[in-house]
Amino acid sequence: MSAPLSTPSTPIEFWFDFTSPYSYLAAEKIDALAARHGRTVDWHPFLLGVIFKETGAVPLVQLPLKGDYSRRDFSRSARYLDLPFKFPSKFPQATVSAARAFYWLSDAHPDRAHDFARSVFRAVFIEDKDLSDIAVLVGIANTLGLPGEELPQAIASPEIKERLKQETATAMEKGVFGAPYIFIDDEPFWGADRLPQIEHWLKTGGF
Amino acid sequence: MSAPLSTPSTPIEFWFDFTSPYSYLAAEKIDALAARHGRTVDWHPFLLGVIFKETGAVPLVQLPLKGDYSRRDFSRSARYLDLPFKFPSKFPQATVSAARAFYWLSDAHPDRAHDFARSVFRAVFIEDKDLSDIAVLVGIANTLGLPGEELPQAIASPEIKERLKQETATAMEKGVFGAPYIFIDDEPFWGADRLPQIEHWLKTGGF
Repeated sequence: MSAPLSTPSTPIEFWFDFTSPYSYLAAEKIDALAARHGRTVDWHPFLLGVIFKETGAVPLVQLPLKGDYSRRDFSRSARYLDLPFKFPSKFPQATVSAARAFYWLSDAHPDRAHDFARSVFRAVFIEDKDLSDIAVLVGIANTLGLPGEELPQAIASPEIKERLKQETATAMEKGVFGAPYIFIDDEPFWGADRLPQIEHWLKTGGF
Repeated sequence: MSAPLSTPSTPIEFWFDFTSPYSYLAAEKIDALAARHGRTVDWHPFLLGVIFKETGAVPLVQLPLKGDYSRRDFSRSARYLDLPFKFPSKFPQATVSAARAFYWLSDAHPDRAHDFARSVFRAVFIEDKDLSDIAVLVGIANTLGLPGEELPQAIASPEIKERLKQETATAMEKGVFGAPYIFIDDEPFWGADRLPQIEHWLKTGGF
C-alpha cells in the first residue's frame, strides 16, 4: 500500500458579521479564491457587537478621523475589487436575525447557505435594505427558491438562538476581534485587505 | 503657443513614524512605486504619540487580542513583501531624535535624507538598535558619508525642534491618525496594506 498523494484539506474558516462592510467585500471573493486552491470555506456569521462589548473595542466608523477615512476606504476598496457598494442609510445594523437565518439554512439547505449570505450582504450594501426587518430576510429566501415562510419560526427556535450564541463564543475563544476574520488551518488573517496574503498562503502552503 | 502636454505632478506625501513597523514596510517600497509612475515622494516623519494623545488612540500592540495578532501580521507582511523583519526588543521607541535628524538632513543634504531614513528603519527593524541612543543616529549618518559629528548639535537647535512640532501639527490638521499615511494629491491612504491600491491609483489616475 502506498501513502495517499494528498490528504484532504481542512476547510478555510470565514468569520463575519453581516453589518461589516469589509466582510461583504470578502464574502464576494472568498469561495472562488479558496476553490482556485482546492479548498472549501466554512462560513461563520457571529455577533461582532458581543465581542466588542467584551474587548472594549469601538466600531471603526465611530472613531474620530478614522471614521471618515473608513467610509472613504469602504467605497474605494469596493471599486478596487470591482464590486458595487453603497453605504447603508442605517448603520450599523442589527444582524442577529440574519445570522440565525444563516445557521437555520446551513443545517437545512447547506448547499444554498452561502448564496443566502451573499444575498443578505448585497441587500445591505447595494440595495440599502434593513436587516432588522424579517420580511427582508424572508424575501431573500423566497427569491432563492428557499422556503422563506419557514424562516420566522425557525429563527425563533431555542436551538438556533443557542447556535448563534455558541458560534459567537467560539469566535471569542479563537481570538477573533474583528471582521472579516479568516483562518487557514491555524493561521489567522484579519480584514478583506488580507485577501492577497491569503491567496499567497494557499498558493505556497504558508510563507 | 501650445499647451504643455503634461503638467508636473505633485509629489506624493509619505507621513510616518520611525517606530511604526508598517511604516518601515512602506518606506522600503514607496519611492520605487512612485517612480514607476513618474512621481516623487516627500517624506514627513512625525510623532504618532502626539497624535494618539490628541485622538485617544491606543498603540496597536497594546490592545487585547489585536496586539498579538499585529505582531504576527508585522512579520508575515514583511515576508509577503520580501523584506527582513525582527520585532525590536525595545518597543515602541522614542523617535523624536531620529525625526529631527531627518529634517536636519532633508534641509542640508536633501538627496541623502531618504537613504538616512531607510537606514534608521533598518536599524530598528532588522538590527534591533535603540533610536533613543544618539550614537546610533550618528553612526548611521557616518556610514552614509554624512557629517554625523554635526548631528547632535543640529537636532538640539530650536529651528529643528520647531520644525518637527510644525510637521506633527500639519499631520494632525490633515487628518493623519495613524502611520504610514500617504496622500496622492488629496486622496488619503492609511497603512502599508494600501500599497496595491496606491499603485492602482497612480496607474489609472484615480479609480
